[in-house]
Amino acid sequence: MNTPSLQQIIDIVKEAAGLMQTDAFEISEKEGFANIVTSSDVAVQDFLCGRLKELMPDSGFLCEEEDMWDTSHEYTWIIDPIDGTANYSRGIAQCAICVGLKHNEDMAMGVVYIPMTGEMFYAEQGKGAFLNGRQIHVSDRPFENSLLCTALPVYHKEYAQMCSDIIVEAFGRCNDIRRFGACAPELCYLAMGRCELYFEYLLSPWDYAAASLIVTEAGGTITATDGSPVKLTQKGGVIAANNAANHKQMADIVAEKTRSTN
Amino acid sequence: MNTPSLQQIIDIVKEAAGLMQTDAFEISEKEGFANIVTSSDVAVQDFLCGRLKELMPDSGFLCEEEDMWDTSHEYTWIIDPIDGTANYSRGIAQCAICVGLKHNEDMAMGVVYIPMTGEMFYAEQGKGAFLNGRQIHVSDRPFENSLLCTALPVYHKEYAQMCSDIIVEAFGRCNDIRRFGACAPELCYLAMGRCELYFEYLLSPWDYAAASLIVTEAGGTITATDGSPVKLTQKGGVIAANNAANHKQMADIVAEKTRSTN
Repeated sequence: MNTPSLQQIIDIVKEAAGLMQTDAFEISEKEGFANIVTSSDVAVQDFLCGRLKELMPDSGFLCEEEDMWDTSHEYTWIIDPIDGTANYSRGIAQCAICVGLKHNEDMAMGVVYIPMTGEMFYAEQGKGAFLNGRQIHVSDRPFENSLLCTALPVYHKEYAQMCSDIIVEAFGRCNDIRRFGACAPELCYLAMGRCELYFEYLLSPWDYAAASLIVTEAGGTITATDGSPVKLTQKGGVIAANNAANHKQMADIVAEKTRSTN
Repeated sequence: MNTPSLQQIIDIVKEAAGLMQTDAFEISEKEGFANIVTSSDVAVQDFLCGRLKELMPDSGFLCEEEDMWDTSHEYTWIIDPIDGTANYSRGIAQCAICVGLKHNEDMAMGVVYIPMTGEMFYAEQGKGAFLNGRQIHVSDRPFENSLLCTALPVYHKEYAQMCSDIIVEAFGRCNDIRRFGACAPELCYLAMGRCELYFEYLLSPWDYAAASLIVTEAGGTITATDGSPVKLTQKGGVIAANNAANHKQMADIVAEKTRSTN
């Protein structure tokens, strides 16, 4: 099968970003206020799916909006039209269009674009990770100087205390924490050395699939919360770090606190 | 005494931002890695103090760097050359130059500039709050739809558990939390309706003095953590909200959790 070039995907994502007009969208609630969708999410997804299907007719789609969950093909597009919809709806810059291309069990390409800052992150398996044409790498900071990007589970607040216990334990051993409000931008920040650690307990593949390749191609480590490979076709959490040693320290904290809760 | 115009302060702050060259600064540690200062912090503060002293010779200064703490004058400049130095040192946009002018016990003017995004926030007592020439207002969201900007205390990690208890309790009742990593930008976000709640337990006046006027002039409420007026000449925490009812709900959570810890 002819696979598209990374540049073709980047061009389509940039075009899609034109549909995110920050003053002209409508907000609907999916499952209560915490989980909103805007008319921009739907417009961006429709545009991406149409264009990517043209580019690669025999491919499947796994998308956040409108229940597209077809992973029966050799190639699957994993798409979050807007990661960080709440930020987007409030005019906060950390929100991104995420397009990943999965080939069998692995991510082949990943594109994460933050339109409000013009930051285009992208990676192709084995070819490194880039931000706006410049190759990026994780930082070499040790755990004690690390910044942890993390979150409390907004759709499942019953896990807030457990996640908070994990965060407080990690906070005691690292430098500080951040919560910018969107998974993919935070994983890209890790890939370029703005932060070193990432943990979130409950996510969907479209939140992290594209960014996960950017992390690994930038030299970082990313797994599911139990240390197994990131789940590309089912929901799950993520632990990421700038290197394997820091990843292990973070994973040990998560394992200890989830064990003591269960 | 002739007081300077808000525009004069804005112009000086913009000029000072030219000294924040993101690729050409040196980092020093003040009290361990968590508390860093860069050569840009020092350069910006020196520039601001020099220019503001020229503008108003008989004024005092209360500044983050180099122990300037003279509040014996009718007018005092309260300055954080870079609020969010850790973000700045990592290339994260949420960092700001903060200049407040205190007249006796009250803030007369406040300027908060985020150079990486070009967002200039400013307010003069009784004349409203503005972002780049456009008047801003807090949002009207109720507590349950609110976003809380908050932090764990990076310089006093012994209070992390108590702050975490406050955050988890508030998270259960509001929409979600954020931690962008700098007080003044987060308070300005509240003033313009990007978030609704703010709580941080341990701060210094230069972190919030300028922004506190922007919050109140935008229609918000801001106090110390015990509900008394914000402390302009001593260290202390801050609770802010888009309206008095949401402020009370947040303050009640803080009071309950600090009481049960003490």
